Amino acid sequence: MIVRASELTPERISNMRGGKGEVEMVHLLSKETMHNKARLFARMKLPPGSSVGLHKHEGEFEIYYILSGEGMFHDNGKDIPVKAGDVCFTDSGESHSIENTGDENLEFLAVIILL
Amino acid sequence: MIVRASELTPERISNMRGGKGEVEMVHLLSKETMHNKARLFARMKLPPGSSVGLHKHEGEFEIYYILSGEGMFHDNGKDIPVKAGDVCFTDSGESHSIENTGDENLEFLAVIILL
Repeated sequence: MIVRASELTPERISNMRGGKGEVEMVHLLSKETMHNKARLFARMKLPPGSSVGLHKHEGEFEIYYILSGEGMFHDNGKDIPVKAGDVCFTDSGESHSIENTGDENLEFLAVIILL
Repeated sequence: MIVRASELTPERISNMRGGKGEVEMVHLLSKETMHNKARLFARMKLPPGSSVGLHKHEGEFEIYYILSGEGMFHDNGKDIPVKAGDVCFTDSGESHSIENTGDENLEFLAVIILL
């Protein structure tokens, strides 16, 4: 099965997880398609200055794969600059947030796999 | 935890799964890191003309997320052209292959999640 991101309508979310501004999310695969083993496989777009706020994962882990742009990733207590090609891994019991600190859109894949 | 693809050494694989030429694979996260819920999270690079040959998945599903370039994806019996932004989903019991049919490198993320 092929899913083309360009054919899907992004969902616009304000203050996602208590973050700043408005972000765009495109759900590329449903959890049903992924046999409920993963509950998110989405492409995220954060305009400059926007963010996904700090939140914790329990019973699951999340992977961000940075596609383009630059940002600051809050990695369970540490702030780490990230850019295209970087992988941000947040384990169960850990917290994270991400903010676009650059001048271009920050785009990444977000994947949540259940334990 | 942050993993930077640029700091990892790619593995070079000839005739992967019976495919053509040599491909590069960078393992971004180990299956141990992913609690054995997923067994592959890798960035693949296929030079023009190279391919990953036809193979079947059982007891797991695989997702390709196309990052750059163009190729032909064999989707369990159908050939479908793919390009950056496309998602190729291969369910348990299905077969797939992918070939770089363009002039630039074909790069994609490959994620295998266990059932």
